Amino acid sequence: GPSKEYEVRRRAIYRGIQEIWYFVQQELVKLKTKGHDQSAPEIANLIQEIMNSGKEHEIILLNDLQELSNMEGHDAWRSTESHALSDLVQRRLHFLQNPVDCSKARKLICNLNKSCGYGCQIHHAAYCFITAYATKRTLILNSKKWRYHRGGWEKVFLPLSDTCTDPSGLDRSNWPGTNETQVIELPIVDMLSPRPPFLPLAIPRDLSERMIRLHGDPQVWWIGQFMKYLLRYQPETQKMLDQAKEKMKFESPVVGVHVRRTDKVGTEAAFHSIDEYMLYVADFFDKLEMREKVKVRRVYLASDDPSVLPEAKKKYPEYEFLGDVSIAKGAAVATRYTDSSLRGILVDIHMLAHSDHLVCTFSSQVCRLAYEIMQTLHPDASSKFKSLDDIYYYGGQGPHQQVAMYSHKAHRSGEISIEVGDVLGIAGNHWDGYSKGTNERTKQSGLYPSFKAVDKYNIIDFPLYSEVAVAA
Amino acid sequence: GPSKEYEVRRRAIYRGIQEIWYFVQQELVKLKTKGHDQSAPEIANLIQEIMNSGKEHEIILLNDLQELSNMEGHDAWRSTESHALSDLVQRRLHFLQNPVDCSKARKLICNLNKSCGYGCQIHHAAYCFITAYATKRTLILNSKKWRYHRGGWEKVFLPLSDTCTDPSGLDRSNWPGTNETQVIELPIVDMLSPRPPFLPLAIPRDLSERMIRLHGDPQVWWIGQFMKYLLRYQPETQKMLDQAKEKMKFESPVVGVHVRRTDKVGTEAAFHSIDEYMLYVADFFDKLEMREKVKVRRVYLASDDPSVLPEAKKKYPEYEFLGDVSIAKGAAVATRYTDSSLRGILVDIHMLAHSDHLVCTFSSQVCRLAYEIMQTLHPDASSKFKSLDDIYYYGGQGPHQQVAMYSHKAHRSGEISIEVGDVLGIAGNHWDGYSKGTNERTKQSGLYPSFKAVDKYNIIDFPLYSEVAVAA
Ligand SMILES: Nc1nc2c(ncn2[C@@H]2O[C@H](COP(=O)(O)OP(=O)(O)O)[C@@H](O)[C@H]2O)c(=O)[nH]1
Ligand SMILES: Nc1nc2c(ncn2[C@@H]2O[C@H](COP(=O)(O)OP(=O)(O)O)[C@@H](O)[C@H]2O)c(=O)[nH]1
Repeated sequence: GPSKEYEVRRRAIYRGIQEIWYFVQQELVKLKTKGHDQSAPEIANLIQEIMNSGKEHEIILLNDLQELSNMEGHDAWRSTESHALSDLVQRRLHFLQNPVDCSKARKLICNLNKSCGYGCQIHHAAYCFITAYATKRTLILNSKKWRYHRGGWEKVFLPLSDTCTDPSGLDRSNWPGTNETQVIELPIVDMLSPRPPFLPLAIPRDLSERMIRLHGDPQVWWIGQFMKYLLRYQPETQKMLDQAKEKMKFESPVVGVHVRRTDKVGTEAAFHSIDEYMLYVADFFDKLEMREKVKVRRVYLASDDPSVLPEAKKKYPEYEFLGDVSIAKGAAVATRYTDSSLRGILVDIHMLAHSDHLVCTFSSQVCRLAYEIMQTLHPDASSKFKSLDDIYYYGGQGPHQQVAMYSHKAHRSGEISIEVGDVLGIAGNHWDGYSKGTNERTKQSGLYPSFKAVDKYNIIDFPLYSEVAVAA
Repeated sequence: GPSKEYEVRRRAIYRGIQEIWYFVQQELVKLKTKGHDQSAPEIANLIQEIMNSGKEHEIILLNDLQELSNMEGHDAWRSTESHALSDLVQRRLHFLQNPVDCSKARKLICNLNKSCGYGCQIHHAAYCFITAYATKRTLILNSKKWRYHRGGWEKVFLPLSDTCTDPSGLDRSNWPGTNETQVIELPIVDMLSPRPPFLPLAIPRDLSERMIRLHGDPQVWWIGQFMKYLLRYQPETQKMLDQAKEKMKFESPVVGVHVRRTDKVGTEAAFHSIDEYMLYVADFFDKLEMREKVKVRRVYLASDDPSVLPEAKKKYPEYEFLGDVSIAKGAAVATRYTDSSLRGILVDIHMLAHSDHLVCTFSSQVCRLAYEIMQTLHPDASSKFKSLDDIYYYGGQGPHQQVAMYSHKAHRSGEISIEVGDVLGIAGNHWDGYSKGTNERTKQSGLYPSFKAVDKYNIIDFPLYSEVAVAA
């Protein structure tokens, strides 16, 4: 049976949920009656008080639940299982990338010449790698024209193979070719035709049960595994990052904040002030402080806008900001695609991924990449983030669907009705209790309560890699 | 490790808590800004909508947590442990009540002549029984003048002993006497002097770990065990109750509602309209309906006021009310202490205790008694109630204390500040997020957030009853 400590904590959470609602409900009743004879500033004050007290309560509930989840040896189990599962995938990738005879191996060529930023290019490489895995082809990464490093991929990361980097073969075709074609060249995902079923956010059937059990977002975990193999640093790169870390005294607890500005703002994303990010940074530390003493509220701040760091330091003197304005300067569009700019984005993404929590805009590939890498550093870091805009997605992904767990009757304009089991194409979470999407049954688009639906995983048959033992 | 289903559910609860707060927070922000340019009725409408949506979400969170708690075989464990622990206590009571030689046995005399209602008298008997257990004396219940049945206790309930009901002995003294005095007579708790440490809400040290692990309110569970032994029905009584149950088609799901009126209102408790009770009845069924189809919303309605049942039936035609107006009529003060009135209160308490949920005022001993008995029918029914006024207490109990788990800074008038570890004498829960009490460190009295403190159990050394095997 469960331990006494577990049972006591579990009941405390139950009561806590009841109490938070007693509180909110009664305060709302008071607001309703007082509304008539109180001034607007008085009402605003009252509302602010409700928000503060409620927030404090929410934080304690989340901490309690986190503690509950670590009890009963569950945490130790998660750590073991996380290593075992990742190890299995990594060994499969190693097997795939090191065929016995490279001259006979079936290959997939991926050109690292997509004309976009670093995050976008790494995502391109990972999409190639997933395709390679799904078609059981050794991935050959052609990085000759890589705009972030004239010397190519291997100047920064380990080669994808110890034995097989030669792109040649008996016959060669563009995607899709046939199963027998030795060498296939993959276009960027935007040009891919036909589109195979295994593109993100698909997950492999043979590992899906273990992944869903282990991880809060198995879709991201899966992508993270490809990043883990892809982004194995060269010793030089590792040294550079270690030194950067030491020099800036990068230490836990620390929140990683990414503020994407310059060319992104107004085109692909909205402007967000530093204050918006700092709200969630404060939440993180407030929550942590309920569990332990926090000596320094440390923030790693990355941006392509050099004005952000000085502004943040001035506005939030009670925080310690790590970061390098010269990195931000080098990230300007004019100097972005250079070796020295590469160093900057490497440092930024590394630190963001190694932070305890991420606050950023998921509209940026920089932050999504950091989030993916973060998943390889914890058994389940799926809730260690706050995106100010999009929910997680992968460029070029297939439809992202949810399934309704509870029915809902639209009762405000903009809402849609759902029935249990309805499939919803989700377009975003408004972070106000509602998600936006399309009900595939009724074809209606609009808002529905986020808690009433859960992700519908796209579980796909991938090769089983039975050549690789399940346990190491 | 935990099962996939468990992990998925656990994470859903985590997200659910985040989402409910996203919702409430953003709605409050809207209220704050809209407050200026919307009319009072518009604002009231908006607030009502927030309350409805939030309530629905709360219900789902509580259901999810309940389901989580039943997973991993925990429910089966709880059931087994509950039987084993109760069995141990019952065998100890049997041992206590059936001494080998009654003429030599140390005895405690309890007179069932307290001039108060049925609930009050049963509580008096249970207080005697707890004292008997704590002093290892066989309880002799003197019910000759019992106002609820001229024929005495044994006309309704089984005798407390098969072998030892003779009150005589070599020497006799009033409480406290000495350990050697053979017969001690116990006064009512109000007159007790000196007051021993083992009075409710004390719990026995040797069982406390198991009790706290098993039950959300071990203090009530402990009292319930004495009720379980005391209130063993005579076959005639059992038959009468079975027939009543069958006749009224008493079936789960059913909520027990107790509306205490007549002599209580204005003296010891406030008046509560039937609507107040029905709010919580609706909550129960709304919550149940999220899990399963509810064919009939059944309510067992007990009251000492014969007007309540017809009023409820008229006002709530969508509910099915069970209950008997003639019982309520017999419960009038003039006819209360008669054999036929006893039948009524027996039926009412039995049905209330056997309901799936209780809605009542804990200021009444009738409902507290039903709640105590309810605990003997489930592994943990500690949260299967809603009291419109008091928190649970036992007449004549020692101080009820809580201990602060989180600090709190008073920020509204009426609130008190607390530090982690402060001991608080709790006087009540306002069911609006706040409890009332006195900080024993600062001597200040006032309100503090209920979720920031938990009961401090009064764990006391009781006899160990090593003569009784731990496992049957
Ligand atoms: N060093 C650094 N560079 C950044 C930062 N934000 C944006 N950049 C640069 O801008 C590019 C943005 O392109 P991409 O990675 O595809 O992400 P997206 O455009 O934000 O979705 C990055 O690769 C960097 O070169 C930042 O915080 N730090
Ligand atoms: N049958 C019946 N009798 C009631 C009910 N409520 C009160 N009474 C009568 O009133 C008495 C109240 O005294 P007591 O049990 O000490 O409880 P309290 O006064 O409510 O704390 C009961 O014992 C009954 O005799 C009820 O719902 N049903």
